[in-house]
Amino acid sequence: MQEADMASYCRDWHGDVEASAIAVLRPANTEEVAHCVKTCSQLGLSIVPQGGNTGLVLGGIPDAPASQVVLSLERMSRIRHIDAEDFSAVVDAGCILEVLKDAVAEQGLFFPLSLGAQGSCHIGGNVSTNAGGINVLRYGMTRDLVLGLEVVLPDGSVLNLLRTLRKDNRGIDLKQLFIGAEGTLGIVTAVAIKLFPQPLQVETALLGLHSLDDAIALYRRARYECCDLLSAFEFMPPLAFDLAIEAMPELVMPLEAGAPAYVLMEVSGSGRVDVRALLEGFLEAVMEEGLVIDGTMASTKAQSAQLWSFREGMNEGQAKRGLHLRTDVSVPLSKLAAFVHDTSAALTLALPECESLAYGHVGDGNVHLNVLPPASYGLQERQRVIATGKKIINEWIDRYDGSISAEHGIGRLKLADFEARLPAAQRRVLEGLRQVINPAGLMNPRCILSDASSPESAV
Amino acid sequence: MQEADMASYCRDWHGDVEASAIAVLRPANTEEVAHCVKTCSQLGLSIVPQGGNTGLVLGGIPDAPASQVVLSLERMSRIRHIDAEDFSAVVDAGCILEVLKDAVAEQGLFFPLSLGAQGSCHIGGNVSTNAGGINVLRYGMTRDLVLGLEVVLPDGSVLNLLRTLRKDNRGIDLKQLFIGAEGTLGIVTAVAIKLFPQPLQVETALLGLHSLDDAIALYRRARYECCDLLSAFEFMPPLAFDLAIEAMPELVMPLEAGAPAYVLMEVSGSGRVDVRALLEGFLEAVMEEGLVIDGTMASTKAQSAQLWSFREGMNEGQAKRGLHLRTDVSVPLSKLAAFVHDTSAALTLALPECESLAYGHVGDGNVHLNVLPPASYGLQERQRVIATGKKIINEWIDRYDGSISAEHGIGRLKLADFEARLPAAQRRVLEGLRQVINPAGLMNPRCILSDASSPESAV
Repeated sequence: MQEADMASYCRDWHGDVEASAIAVLRPANTEEVAHCVKTCSQLGLSIVPQGGNTGLVLGGIPDAPASQVVLSLERMSRIRHIDAEDFSAVVDAGCILEVLKDAVAEQGLFFPLSLGAQGSCHIGGNVSTNAGGINVLRYGMTRDLVLGLEVVLPDGSVLNLLRTLRKDNRGIDLKQLFIGAEGTLGIVTAVAIKLFPQPLQVETALLGLHSLDDAIALYRRARYECCDLLSAFEFMPPLAFDLAIEAMPELVMPLEAGAPAYVLMEVSGSGRVDVRALLEGFLEAVMEEGLVIDGTMASTKAQSAQLWSFREGMNEGQAKRGLHLRTDVSVPLSKLAAFVHDTSAALTLALPECESLAYGHVGDGNVHLNVLPPASYGLQERQRVIATGKKIINEWIDRYDGSISAEHGIGRLKLADFEARLPAAQRRVLEGLRQVINPAGLMNPRCILSDASSPESAV
Repeated sequence: MQEADMASYCRDWHGDVEASAIAVLRPANTEEVAHCVKTCSQLGLSIVPQGGNTGLVLGGIPDAPASQVVLSLERMSRIRHIDAEDFSAVVDAGCILEVLKDAVAEQGLFFPLSLGAQGSCHIGGNVSTNAGGINVLRYGMTRDLVLGLEVVLPDGSVLNLLRTLRKDNRGIDLKQLFIGAEGTLGIVTAVAIKLFPQPLQVETALLGLHSLDDAIALYRRARYECCDLLSAFEFMPPLAFDLAIEAMPELVMPLEAGAPAYVLMEVSGSGRVDVRALLEGFLEAVMEEGLVIDGTMASTKAQSAQLWSFREGMNEGQAKRGLHLRTDVSVPLSKLAAFVHDTSAALTLALPECESLAYGHVGDGNVHLNVLPPASYGLQERQRVIATGKKIINEWIDRYDGSISAEHGIGRLKLADFEARLPAAQRRVLEGLRQVINPAGLMNPRCILSDASSPESAV
């Protein structure tokens, strides 16, 4: 592969980092992956496993050009088997999430993992980062959707845990080690997943509320009254709609503007429940009580897609504002409103010239708290804003016993912040795992954990 | 503690094995557990952690009287915190499952783990064995219900992973290592759990069908039509009812006898869905089609409890038949009927004088396939039946890519059968984990994995 062809494998999703590597390996099957791993091991080369390269924490791109290869799973994209009677499928790690979702949908089945990058990300990358997304509150994280794995270990042996059993209590569940390990303990080459009945009724509503506190109260009400059929519950501040319209000027605000807080909620189901009547009844009650002040329910698929396009447009709008601080944090749901209030106030005080916004998967206690510098700021000023904002957010996360990475992982981007908060006992176990499974440290070095004894140095 | 007082800690749930130990330690808090572990380590004593001692695979009772202590968590039974707004709770490991379920129910919340032993088993033991039970198809195994853990490691240090975050992707999820590890990597001292809205509508039906194949077809229909509100789906053969009535002669068969197969199903929900109408509509349709030939729906809580008492009475009835073969296996759902047919035929051929029965959590592909020798058989003949039956069942499990332990774990009872099927790569990782976390091998030795280098020998 020419250097120019390699560039896209060495550049991160946001385009913030351009790295390089000795080579990009593109094995076509599990045996070839094992062969690549053995050969690299003999040559003392370290491997950065890569899926769709849509990760947000620099876990899938190299950091040491002289000694690293990228191993892309993109040629391993086969759906090995869909078993409709077992509600399961087995797929190669390099299968694109959307391809997989479409293939099972053709058989009336549903794979619930849903995220912005689904047209590019790979199921193997989803497993390695334990991807979340918008349906977590109903169906769980990727971990909850995995029945089995096939993994090539750093010594080149193949760990075959590729089962579709729902219940299998044969001692320690080794596959759990590799879910969310970001390729540091081995390379996921195939995945067995759980499938669900395709929800044929999907009802979406955009609601205006008085505050984030009210949004959380609404979420709790919805959990009780919508009978476990709530499938998404996204919080958005008014600024989110401005950003979406900046990116997609054709969007038309579907509600009267002016509510201080918005919620995009989805209730879904197959079968004999009238999901539309359920949501209508619920919304009628909460509007009568004044908890929801304004609202619209999509009456067609196109209208529903339009409501969701605000959620996606908001991300594009932020990107158009130039380099800014993006975070991905979580706290217990009962503390979420207080955390957002306190942290936003501290950000306004320290960075009065910037706009901050908090949005996200409120039902999971997960918010993206971002800070946008004014348009006039240059690179250096933006970097200062990012450093100051991150320090403030992390301090408040620590006070609220939260996580500095709710969905995105640690990778190389959050390594220092992670290690600074890592208790000694936990560090010893993590280092012990690496010592046992990845003793030469050649599998995705300096991702999640730094390695003082590594002969390489980061770029 | 006197030897007589220690007996109950050294005898298994079924009373099949009576062991002994040097001492029974009953620490009152996490610090005392850590102190016990350090002291035992200094003395070279190995520790068998024990919860409610309701395990079924001899994982919680000692096997080496001269060098082992039992460490019971029973004095650590405090509910530390219930947070209704966060849908979570934090409890000491020794809390009895039913006490926990009742405490959260008082706040309108629900902890879905439901199993026969819930009046005695501890939440810590549920975690250490990744307990299953009757609601797995809706809510998952214990693993799916755990948000955080506190664990005392074999070196006496405390690993504090006691968080209630729904989303926390800070790299490798260490708590997963200890779920289902049967106390071999450390002692679980506290657990943070997910809670759900209490389902206020719970509808139960007992149905007669033509066959197990039809029961599986019915399950698939129910998944599609009952909109993810199906919460239990238990298969029972006609013999199950005879056994239940043998144990509880006051029970009255609620259906006309004569169906070749029965299903006990439960649909439940909170809020705005009319669960009774949902189940009635579904049953009407499947009876009209002839998939279900007879059925009754409980109209009161007492009637529902009576239907469930057949499921429990069946277990007591088996116990009354004396020593017999109990298994706990799983295969992919799409192969379950074929597996049961083939294995039952092989059992009838090899053991024509015995009765075999298959029942269980069909929705999870999990059956208990048991063999009952005739009343006249003595101990030796029964042991022969058990050995022969187990060999046959395990052979068929292997042919169907199933698990020899769907729910109960490996412990010491299934150690040999587990290791005989353990691929080399998997064994190396398991031994590596032990080497790193439990290097002296003093934490629950010979549970899950044998230890060739151990100085002890099993009784």
